[in-house]
Amino acid sequence: MRTFFLLLIICISTAANAQVTGALNLMPLPKSMTTQNGHFTMNPGFTVAVHADQTDTMCFLAVNRMFQTLNRRTGLFFTQENISSKDKNDSAGLVITVKNKSGMKIGMDESYRIQVSTRQIRLEANTTIGALRGMQTIIQLLSNDESGFYLPIVNIEDAPRYAWRGLMIDVSRHFIPMDVLKRNLDAMTALKMNVLHLHLSDDQGFRVESKIFPKLQSEGSNGEYYKQEEITDLVSYAAIRGVIVVPEFDMPGHSTSWFAGYPELATKPGPYKPGSPYKLDRSESLNPMKLMQIIQTTPFPTFDPTKESVYKFLDTLIGEMTTLFPAPYFHIGADENNGVAWKQDSGIVQFMRKNNFATTHELQAYFVDRVQKMVTKYGKKTIGWDELFSKNLSKEVLVQVWTPMSPPGLVKQIVSQGNPVILSKGFYLDHFMPAYVHYNYELPAEEILGGEAAQWTEIADAENIETRIWPRAAAIAEKFWSSNTVADPMDLYRRMFIISKQLHEGGLQHISNYDRMVLRFSSGYNYQDTKRLMDVLTPVKGYKRLFALISMPTSFSYQSAPLIRAADIAWVDPSEKWKFRKNVTEFLQTKSPASEMAVRDQLMVWSKNYDQLKPLFESTPVAKEIVQHSKNLSALSIVCLQAMDFLKTGKKPGEQWLKDQQKLLESAKGNYGDVELSVLPEMNALISQNFAPLPMSYPLF
Amino acid sequence: MRTFFLLLIICISTAANAQVTGALNLMPLPKSMTTQNGHFTMNPGFTVAVHADQTDTMCFLAVNRMFQTLNRRTGLFFTQENISSKDKNDSAGLVITVKNKSGMKIGMDESYRIQVSTRQIRLEANTTIGALRGMQTIIQLLSNDESGFYLPIVNIEDAPRYAWRGLMIDVSRHFIPMDVLKRNLDAMTALKMNVLHLHLSDDQGFRVESKIFPKLQSEGSNGEYYKQEEITDLVSYAAIRGVIVVPEFDMPGHSTSWFAGYPELATKPGPYKPGSPYKLDRSESLNPMKLMQIIQTTPFPTFDPTKESVYKFLDTLIGEMTTLFPAPYFHIGADENNGVAWKQDSGIVQFMRKNNFATTHELQAYFVDRVQKMVTKYGKKTIGWDELFSKNLSKEVLVQVWTPMSPPGLVKQIVSQGNPVILSKGFYLDHFMPAYVHYNYELPAEEILGGEAAQWTEIADAENIETRIWPRAAAIAEKFWSSNTVADPMDLYRRMFIISKQLHEGGLQHISNYDRMVLRFSSGYNYQDTKRLMDVLTPVKGYKRLFALISMPTSFSYQSAPLIRAADIAWVDPSEKWKFRKNVTEFLQTKSPASEMAVRDQLMVWSKNYDQLKPLFESTPVAKEIVQHSKNLSALSIVCLQAMDFLKTGKKPGEQWLKDQQKLLESAKGNYGDVELSVLPEMNALISQNFAPLPMSYPLF
Repeated sequence: MRTFFLLLIICISTAANAQVTGALNLMPLPKSMTTQNGHFTMNPGFTVAVHADQTDTMCFLAVNRMFQTLNRRTGLFFTQENISSKDKNDSAGLVITVKNKSGMKIGMDESYRIQVSTRQIRLEANTTIGALRGMQTIIQLLSNDESGFYLPIVNIEDAPRYAWRGLMIDVSRHFIPMDVLKRNLDAMTALKMNVLHLHLSDDQGFRVESKIFPKLQSEGSNGEYYKQEEITDLVSYAAIRGVIVVPEFDMPGHSTSWFAGYPELATKPGPYKPGSPYKLDRSESLNPMKLMQIIQTTPFPTFDPTKESVYKFLDTLIGEMTTLFPAPYFHIGADENNGVAWKQDSGIVQFMRKNNFATTHELQAYFVDRVQKMVTKYGKKTIGWDELFSKNLSKEVLVQVWTPMSPPGLVKQIVSQGNPVILSKGFYLDHFMPAYVHYNYELPAEEILGGEAAQWTEIADAENIETRIWPRAAAIAEKFWSSNTVADPMDLYRRMFIISKQLHEGGLQHISNYDRMVLRFSSGYNYQDTKRLMDVLTPVKGYKRLFALISMPTSFSYQSAPLIRAADIAWVDPSEKWKFRKNVTEFLQTKSPASEMAVRDQLMVWSKNYDQLKPLFESTPVAKEIVQHSKNLSALSIVCLQAMDFLKTGKKPGEQWLKDQQKLLESAKGNYGDVELSVLPEMNALISQNFAPLPMSYPLF
Repeated sequence: MRTFFLLLIICISTAANAQVTGALNLMPLPKSMTTQNGHFTMNPGFTVAVHADQTDTMCFLAVNRMFQTLNRRTGLFFTQENISSKDKNDSAGLVITVKNKSGMKIGMDESYRIQVSTRQIRLEANTTIGALRGMQTIIQLLSNDESGFYLPIVNIEDAPRYAWRGLMIDVSRHFIPMDVLKRNLDAMTALKMNVLHLHLSDDQGFRVESKIFPKLQSEGSNGEYYKQEEITDLVSYAAIRGVIVVPEFDMPGHSTSWFAGYPELATKPGPYKPGSPYKLDRSESLNPMKLMQIIQTTPFPTFDPTKESVYKFLDTLIGEMTTLFPAPYFHIGADENNGVAWKQDSGIVQFMRKNNFATTHELQAYFVDRVQKMVTKYGKKTIGWDELFSKNLSKEVLVQVWTPMSPPGLVKQIVSQGNPVILSKGFYLDHFMPAYVHYNYELPAEEILGGEAAQWTEIADAENIETRIWPRAAAIAEKFWSSNTVADPMDLYRRMFIISKQLHEGGLQHISNYDRMVLRFSSGYNYQDTKRLMDVLTPVKGYKRLFALISMPTSFSYQSAPLIRAADIAWVDPSEKWKFRKNVTEFLQTKSPASEMAVRDQLMVWSKNYDQLKPLFESTPVAKEIVQHSKNLSALSIVCLQAMDFLKTGKKPGEQWLKDQQKLLESAKGNYGDVELSVLPEMNALISQNFAPLPMSYPLF
């Protein structure tokens, strides 16, 4: 994989042109596709006919949504007003045929076929869901040039590689409002994802209304939670778009918020209030080792697995929640329970002895087994994070693999024991990795059920979460839909940033909220240059910032601090960086005047950045944090312009000059304000006239 | 007023500098204010103390919202985490004192006093609502410069001029989702507005759930309506922000949607379905006279005022709805009932004879009287549009004056009869008038209750409605809050566009959705230049476009057509126009190099617009509509650059040259694609070296 990738990086411009598939802007790429010259031309007389069960409301709603999207994008004002089961004219511009009416079920047939000729578009699917997936492809096939709007002549056979293609959103650490969830659902739909997994409870908040145990939300949250009607509305919004909503209630750890209202469920009497369980000695600075030790040795608030009343409570709640969430899956968390609270309780220790549990992990297995049986009783399958895996785990249970340090054989072990695997290891969006890192993550050889991108929200909130998830989640969506032969990262970025604009156009707030946050950050000073700087910054990767946050004084903690620093705003994988990389690559390869001008123009603008933003840095504390990046960007831009002059004149730079610049580059790698300058590899390439290979992964700590 | 205004236009630059009030960016401007040199400096140790009833949740929620806004804007990460009734330290940075806990009631004391010294900010109010208004002023007082963030030393005494300061949103013609309403409420709060009036029913849709008569929403809408819990949530969202929500159910006309489910309420048996009642002969083109005739002679679907069953139905529904909406007002519409449906019904004619009703207006007065008595029974005051006014109207009824052709004495007549007046005449946002036209509209000499900006949605939807309402509604908000001596339009624009950015930063989507729509409009071509063109276009004023829409074929009708044309996107009152005007004014007055450069740079960019956008115009139908504006903008920019050369060299342009340019200017005034070029007066000023007076009003037809 690594060699292949490097080759592609080097051949980027040729690769992009050679790939007909890429030129079509489809994402995820279909299983198979053949194209020919020619167009199906769109015009106001464009009509749609549907052969489907006339009670297939989901199908007709989707057809009309697609039709209106095409209408809006083309501005053609189609004369057909809407499409109903009466529209069956076989000479319509688009004829859709659906064999079987069906809602979304994991493992079902989601395949479809599209044939575009100059005369007609045909979409066929065995199921309604397949047809929905195909409609997204039709939207993405819409193209335009001087001749107007059209679909290219193409033959597509498509089906997903994996059955489970999810997005997990943590709505506990920061509450994420319904409209944000719906916008994420719209974006997921465009990328053919089919599972929205909501992490509904954690130490910091219980986010769904229980009518039976109302203190769960009233005491267990800051008043921000979903009412049951809102959940019902969300579930149906998702369902008609072919997405199931899987609820997660994390237990027996990560559960402080439950105990705020019901302390009797916990090992200790409390009182409890929702919030981070980390009670640190702020006086000493925290390093990863020290934090690991704290994680392993702190008696975090935990359910008492020995009380029958606990199981009675859970049985009732699971009964209520499985009714609220119709999906046939129920996630019980079961992660990061270090067992310390249990070991400290003499009653629990006695219980373990009595039952011959040698470790707290065995006790957790007992707890999981009992909870899993309740979930089964309510007709659902249990899911848990990989710590719930044990020798005697019921084969019915789905295991979501995530732990970064888990042994390489874990997936194999789970699969060979007969449990389905959902893979999230390698797909944590909150690790702040570039999309290509997720994209190139090697999937296990074993047959897994699928995967989930995961967005935890210790340092993400309603305003910036869309900028954290999108467009990178599109790369992960493709990973789990498309064939494993699709692995060209430069074509990935080309398509990903096109899709990103389409999502923006469709109402996703990632770009709008980024602009909004940059405007606030610029505090009335130079917005354009503030944006130009922010456009090439990127948050420090891995857990660095989260660890730093945990060790900060209260008001800086992720519970109450406003997320307004550069590290909260900057793109994880900035499009401007990849645009610059494309231009630099082209310039170094071809020395074409166009690429030279593009690179020089960009460097000229950056070279003035520090001068332009001085007043901002001098007066605004959040800006002051990143002043060094602006200085470095400007200084290195001037150096790069010199390097280009050297290249042009054929004059060789002196050894001392090169040494000085390498030193400058090295020092520019620093972390200031928890952000890094993302264009250093490209600047280094200009200076040294050679691209260093991109790292395939980055350390988490 | 006119002369005063013209003077100010001419003195713009000096006026702006001289006005200390203006320099403070407050909107609406307070009643009285004295400033001194000096600052209260904000720093991380900034704290807030509150002296208020400890059960005054509304107050504490507002204080914490304000505190977090200050925290986000300054990026200072205040050490105080949140403010509760325990925070009473009199040496806090901000001390808030509230005498009486109170919710919003029309006519209440909304006054407040703010004193800022170098040591402390003090906010005092007699009521919670007054304190809320003052907190918005504190947010607006926040300033920053090279010394950091601060509040200027100032003494403010403030109270509203009018008790009723509302915004009406029509959610029937196009459904407006809850999140859009909440964003509008946030913006209203910033401008100290206190009434959100929802036009919940009209021919095109009944938009609120009735549990007693569910066919109202199920048959009377396209499935888009508010559930009762959503209304309750909205009402409480508004209430804690000091805004009441007034529902309007329009009757006896404008009521087709009711009859879809309950045809027995109407004069004719139906069947009915929600939609525009205009059934026009599309073959002949429509002119205003013809339309007037249609409006006056068509038997539009209308309630039957003679049936007791109708009153029984209404009594039950009003009982249900007055419970759902706790505000003590209930709007019954009563506008635009031409009486034709009544005259065509022999039973009704007989009823009129029997009761000695000489006109259908008298019959409507009877209907209104009966409905008003029910409203009274449920403890509410009735509101109606001015057509409901009649000699014997109960003095309890509030009259909302709107009709453009109403006699000048109407307000006087209503007031002298003892009915309170809400003024919307002059404040229809959907007339596409610039803010200064609303701002300079002369208020009646009589004592009125207040006014309402009104946004009808025949040609506005969830995506563009925020661009239609904001920031112009801010000018109207100031009109009804501030003293009538505040009438400087250039300072209005200066402050209005600052507030506009703050609303954007706070989450309003007017700027984001504009960008989104322009991106879609640019169809993958040159976004920047598409935006530059769109930035100086403005929809045709008055009812021109609505009339054109009504006469168009079905699929172009406002019920189903996508709102994606330039006329749906372009700002009604573009900031770029006023920026250009400021620069041109300064240049003509001072010939300063800075102003000359600003004007020239802008003209240079515009001069290339047509060349830049040719590929877009050639391929995209919605863009093709406005190609002539781009040609004119580019051609006139070149002419303006020549004019500036003449000015600089002292060379006089030839008479023929001037004539040619006047001809070009004249032809550029054309309506293409239902938009106009907004910068023609400024271009004319450059060419003729003289500003023509701005029109104080524009024709509606």
